[in-house]
Amino acid sequence: MQFDINQSITILKRTPEVLKVLLSGLIKDWTDKNEGPETFSPFDVVGHLIHGEKTDWRVRATMILEHGTAKAFEPYDRFAQFRLSEGRTMDELLKEFASLRSENIRWLESLHLSDADLDKKGVHPELGEVSLRQLLSTWVVHDLTHIAQVTRVMAKQYRYEIGPWIGYFRIMNF
Amino acid sequence: MQFDINQSITILKRTPEVLKVLLSGLIKDWTDKNEGPETFSPFDVVGHLIHGEKTDWRVRATMILEHGTAKAFEPYDRFAQFRLSEGRTMDELLKEFASLRSENIRWLESLHLSDADLDKKGVHPELGEVSLRQLLSTWVVHDLTHIAQVTRVMAKQYRYEIGPWIGYFRIMNF
Repeated sequence: MQFDINQSITILKRTPEVLKVLLSGLIKDWTDKNEGPETFSPFDVVGHLIHGEKTDWRVRATMILEHGTAKAFEPYDRFAQFRLSEGRTMDELLKEFASLRSENIRWLESLHLSDADLDKKGVHPELGEVSLRQLLSTWVVHDLTHIAQVTRVMAKQYRYEIGPWIGYFRIMNF
Repeated sequence: MQFDINQSITILKRTPEVLKVLLSGLIKDWTDKNEGPETFSPFDVVGHLIHGEKTDWRVRATMILEHGTAKAFEPYDRFAQFRLSEGRTMDELLKEFASLRSENIRWLESLHLSDADLDKKGVHPELGEVSLRQLLSTWVVHDLTHIAQVTRVMAKQYRYEIGPWIGYFRIMNF
């Protein structure tokens, strides 16, 4: 499948609602456990997505459109949410993510990006030259893989409850 | 986390809505691609979940409660949906899954399972003795890992669109 701006927006728009249906109102046993050191709980993921809306996707797309390759992106802090989400509830985070995402989608739609725009390049601090098309594709992949992570982490909470069935779930060892 | 019937029902109840928000109305590029031979597309997963509601979880739980270890479960056909979903639309499947699941949850709640019930055993055709608690835990894990699979398969559709970012997504090689 090739990148398509409308197909990408279709997915990006749904993520807040998917996470709300999945996570809203659950007890912390489901939402606050992770997969080990330096891994994310579902709660951490939602904080991480919020931080991405504020400091990553839109900011980097704007840099590509305004500065091209003249200036590298700021490094993205993958662990910022450990500090920023402290003391907040899942439902607060879900609400903030939904509101930031919907604002960023409105902004993205307002750009009316052409193919030539999507070909424009910026500089990632570690990866080097990247195109706007690659950045926006990554935004979609980032959403989907974090939903995969959230549900995998939740599944792992019952790891020792499923007895011999564990052998059928390769994903539980990811 | 230990198995808890109410916590399990909380998750089982949400799955149809999660999948609906995620998959309803999407083009086939998102829903009909898989990860290679003998793997499932999101469309296949929803058919597989329908088949599970009809022939697996409830049927096996009933066998444990009525026959104990006297009779092994019927083997579950993991590939039945390739035949059964043919010619159907995603939205039809999502609707059928939601209706079967809600019926099965009503049935599960009506059992008012005690700890002694959850300890009861049945015989899995490959795995041998399993408890009702393990079966119901597996139902939950099965839901969550299939949502993880659906979103992973969708993410992989942009595998070649994200350029050098691929290096940050270990999950894309799962």
